[in-house]
Amino acid sequence: MTPAALEAYLHGQIPLTRAMGVQVISIADERVVLGAPLAPNINHHGTAFGGSGATLATLAAWSLLHLRLIAAGLPSDEVIQSSTMDYLAPIDSDFTAVARLEPDADWDGFLTMLSRRGRARIGLQAELVAEERVAARFHGRFAALAAGRP
Amino acid sequence: MTPAALEAYLHGQIPLTRAMGVQVISIADERVVLGAPLAPNINHHGTAFGGSGATLATLAAWSLLHLRLIAAGLPSDEVIQSSTMDYLAPIDSDFTAVARLEPDADWDGFLTMLSRRGRARIGLQAELVAEERVAARFHGRFAALAAGRP
Repeated sequence: MTPAALEAYLHGQIPLTRAMGVQVISIADERVVLGAPLAPNINHHGTAFGGSGATLATLAAWSLLHLRLIAAGLPSDEVIQSSTMDYLAPIDSDFTAVARLEPDADWDGFLTMLSRRGRARIGLQAELVAEERVAARFHGRFAALAAGRP
Repeated sequence: MTPAALEAYLHGQIPLTRAMGVQVISIADERVVLGAPLAPNINHHGTAFGGSGATLATLAAWSLLHLRLIAAGLPSDEVIQSSTMDYLAPIDSDFTAVARLEPDADWDGFLTMLSRRGRARIGLQAELVAEERVAARFHGRFAALAAGRP
């Protein structure tokens, strides 16, 4: 899937991503980078609204998992089960969310479980980056349900 | 502050709250209830988008803290420092976020610290409720900075 195709999918399926001006900046097997402009995501302090930051991080992590499962030949529904956000610094510019697997994620074991049982869980992380500084860290636990399973 | 005044403040200061259709349903010392319609917050599964849920919960908790500090005569800036979300069930209707102080929060100690030092931290929680069922739980740690402090 190209960045443009993913962006069109998000904007078409999740209206809030249009309101936020979410952009798909890059897609690779190891990481997905989404971007958002400050203006539609601003708060009463003139900085990025925490809800927008948490949302962009969640979207980036979901996108990485979704695309990796398509690439692995296991298209699935992916749903978030739990997450944490640590807000480290205010953001006063456009910002990005850079998603990766958690360093301790067992991708092969996850695929095996998903193939055998039709359901598996895995952890992803995302960093919010503004002006080359990490401004927040997200960790999310996602469940994948193989397509066609009840 | 009335619910209508808080709603106007949120819509005026945080554009994403307009896009989400955030409503202020009730305000009391013990809890604040915000609402959101499903349509602008829907995802590709036809259920409420997790980012919208996390955002509504964050807003409800922030609102409760903000209003309690005004009522206490200590108007402040409040910023979120960290949060967790546990998504328990999909939401396929309009939904609310009901915010309260954490049961173990020391409100009097928090006010004393804020008065003396100009800065203090406290925990708040929020539940997302849809069709009378709790669909997600939020816990957030907020810092308050007394107005006029650097």
